[in-house]
Amino acid sequence: MFKVKALLFDVFGTVVDWRTGIARDVKIIADKHNISINPYDFADAWRAEYQPAMEEIRQGRRGFTILDKLHLENLKKIAPRFNLDNLSNEEYNFLVTAWHRLPGWPDSSEGLNKLKKKFILATQSNGNIALMVNMAKYSSLNWDVILGAEVVGHYKPEPEAYQKACSALNLKTTECLMVAAHDDDLKAASLQGMKTAYVHRPFEYGREKLFDIAEVDDYKGDRYWDIVSADFHDLANQLGC
Amino acid sequence: MFKVKALLFDVFGTVVDWRTGIARDVKIIADKHNISINPYDFADAWRAEYQPAMEEIRQGRRGFTILDKLHLENLKKIAPRFNLDNLSNEEYNFLVTAWHRLPGWPDSSEGLNKLKKKFILATQSNGNIALMVNMAKYSSLNWDVILGAEVVGHYKPEPEAYQKACSALNLKTTECLMVAAHDDDLKAASLQGMKTAYVHRPFEYGREKLFDIAEVDDYKGDRYWDIVSADFHDLANQLGC
Repeated sequence: MFKVKALLFDVFGTVVDWRTGIARDVKIIADKHNISINPYDFADAWRAEYQPAMEEIRQGRRGFTILDKLHLENLKKIAPRFNLDNLSNEEYNFLVTAWHRLPGWPDSSEGLNKLKKKFILATQSNGNIALMVNMAKYSSLNWDVILGAEVVGHYKPEPEAYQKACSALNLKTTECLMVAAHDDDLKAASLQGMKTAYVHRPFEYGREKLFDIAEVDDYKGDRYWDIVSADFHDLANQLGC
Repeated sequence: MFKVKALLFDVFGTVVDWRTGIARDVKIIADKHNISINPYDFADAWRAEYQPAMEEIRQGRRGFTILDKLHLENLKKIAPRFNLDNLSNEEYNFLVTAWHRLPGWPDSSEGLNKLKKKFILATQSNGNIALMVNMAKYSSLNWDVILGAEVVGHYKPEPEAYQKACSALNLKTTECLMVAAHDDDLKAASLQGMKTAYVHRPFEYGREKLFDIAEVDDYKGDRYWDIVSADFHDLANQLGC
């Protein structure tokens, strides 16, 4: 592990709590219009459209499109289900940019500051540059560099997404550690030669769907992970920060 | 000026002292080989190849090529003039990465930290991503985002270099302030609608070529600049940070 020079982070779910952030902002809009919804169901429904929308691009059926635009399209797709299809453009924009105002997990900001003293910290997210920059300001995430989909032109888990991010840093994939709370991301990164660190985010899908770190061995399936960590403080400890 | 949300910085000369940094590192190599050179002449000669190399790409005679590669080619071009053409690959690499280890001007790191509290801080440099990230770590330059040539695929002063950097932040050019010590960069930025801040860096070309801030009116020619500042502390003051 001592050859690792840069840490590349998945962001949605790993660094920030998208479900809480989206639920918080859609509740503002729903309350304003006296519409009764379960804001967490809304967040889950919106997030469920995320992978299918990117898959069109990964499969080459559509040119590269930034996530803000996909989020707007997906929002308009699910809005009728929640009686939210008569919003103004300003209100739709407020909801799309809710993804720019997601709260970090309690350890995220401070944990990243510890890790930054020893490593290059990069975002390796499917979010676009403006989204990542605004979120970083909002939640005090002190990245060294915003990489990810818009910079490299590929959506994870395409191999190019990982390869091009590492080479933009002029590093070998073996010198880069992918940090994520999700097995599919870590799998795809390790297949390109990256080191992998799992971070446990038991509340990503809500407290009722919590799973214990003891269950992680089942979750990861047959993959080898270099590090399993409980949060960013634990990751910093394990990396000697 | 109150609509400005992001500050985009020229880097070589404006944020870091390339001439001192390059002279420092070439002296190490020259001394090792008992070669007597004026290290500042070497730095000036290397820098003189910078614009012509990029011009090939701007004119479409060559595909986009990152600056690290252009620096290596330019180094090999000027090396014989300084009896430095028998270096090992490791020594050439040490010199190319001297551009990753340039010192900030005395006010740069602290001044950027002040400005960062109120604005998005972006690099808008012709340097590649790895160069900018390594330099930021080396000289404590806490950028929010690395933009510039490698991200947008265009070298300044091409109009697209400015337009695409602003739109990557999802901002209008009028919401972005170009910060530079060079008139040509500010001119090109203002033609795209960006606000402009001149920063006086009288020692960029050495102390013997110092020019006083009183001479700035001659230097800028017929362009209007929104701000004229003595350094980043002064810029922060003028922007209410």
